[in-house]
Amino acid sequence: MLKLFYFPGACSLAAHIVLEEIGEPYERQLVNLRDGQQRSPEYLRTNPKGKVPALLTERGVLTENPVILGYLARRYPAAQLAPLGDDFDFAVVQAFNTYLATTLHPLYGRVNFPARFVEGEEAGASLRAKAAQAIDDCFRLIEQRFSDDRPYVHGSQYTISDPYLYVFERWTSRPGAAGLSRHPHVQAHHDRLQARAAVQRALAAEELS
Amino acid sequence: MLKLFYFPGACSLAAHIVLEEIGEPYERQLVNLRDGQQRSPEYLRTNPKGKVPALLTERGVLTENPVILGYLARRYPAAQLAPLGDDFDFAVVQAFNTYLATTLHPLYGRVNFPARFVEGEEAGASLRAKAAQAIDDCFRLIEQRFSDDRPYVHGSQYTISDPYLYVFERWTSRPGAAGLSRHPHVQAHHDRLQARAAVQRALAAEELS
Repeated sequence: MLKLFYFPGACSLAAHIVLEEIGEPYERQLVNLRDGQQRSPEYLRTNPKGKVPALLTERGVLTENPVILGYLARRYPAAQLAPLGDDFDFAVVQAFNTYLATTLHPLYGRVNFPARFVEGEEAGASLRAKAAQAIDDCFRLIEQRFSDDRPYVHGSQYTISDPYLYVFERWTSRPGAAGLSRHPHVQAHHDRLQARAAVQRALAAEELS
Repeated sequence: MLKLFYFPGACSLAAHIVLEEIGEPYERQLVNLRDGQQRSPEYLRTNPKGKVPALLTERGVLTENPVILGYLARRYPAAQLAPLGDDFDFAVVQAFNTYLATTLHPLYGRVNFPARFVEGEEAGASLRAKAAQAIDDCFRLIEQRFSDDRPYVHGSQYTISDPYLYVFERWTSRPGAAGLSRHPHVQAHHDRLQARAAVQRALAAEELS
């Protein structure tokens, strides 16, 4: 049985939602990032990079969200979470997910934990301001993907890109964050995802609202 | 015919090497990052993210290195550049490539262009020092993958992970960079890649040594 290593609200939420969409039995194991459990010798044996998510399969461990989400979509084709019959269409989905992983995700670290990147309060504030601007630039680009006829990232069909984007929409909607009101289709996508049963189940299991 | 948009020595070099390994006809188009050509209206129509690499196919454009490299490996199975018959083994290759894209690659931006991230010289120096340390931490982790019996990233078989890692090994070997001498298997991997005919052809086409 698959086992997901996660922390509530972290980017592992994307894989958690996808597992709920699939509906097959799986296990979850919380890795307490606040207590530094990701750097424990035990967890480093599972994932030497000391991060979540990690997905333990009967063949070994997979890491990195785009890879875990793509693997789950291929393993459970009946869930129809990606275009599986066509390498180009699948690559388009993975290009979007990899953009989230390489470009959007790292910006939140600079906003939330500037001291990991630079010494001093003034420098931290400057780093944070530039990163917040870059997050807004990313959402401006993402906003253009949507229209009234394109409710999901890749059009009319829900895919693994949608719950992954939802994680960052959720982070940007938190109290104190910039919010999504300048990007109305992105805001609507967040709300559409939030209303899905699988998303609600994953949030409840992570004790989030 | 496929067309690769690249800049000499940028991370697009990985796709360039893979195209040379494959040996089928393709086109190259230089995007001059020094002149800001990546932000020209013409290039933004190809890649709205304003980055290289981009791969133009007869179906449309693909972006993000792990995706382009994975697509090329699947499109040209005879080149044997990834384990194609097994979704788990393929995912392991992609997890490594995605780690390079999400974790190692972004660190070089902080070392080389700190003013994009933070205002002020002192803050820039602090950002750069922490990023240089983090690059070394990544190579220490990567070093453990290799052994005398494991000359390539995934063992005895050359895959798309090897030229992608080579790009960062090359950046770290440049004059003024930290070098790879503390990571002897990584250094040997760099030298092994550098000696390959496909790598030499790609370097020559990009007018690099």
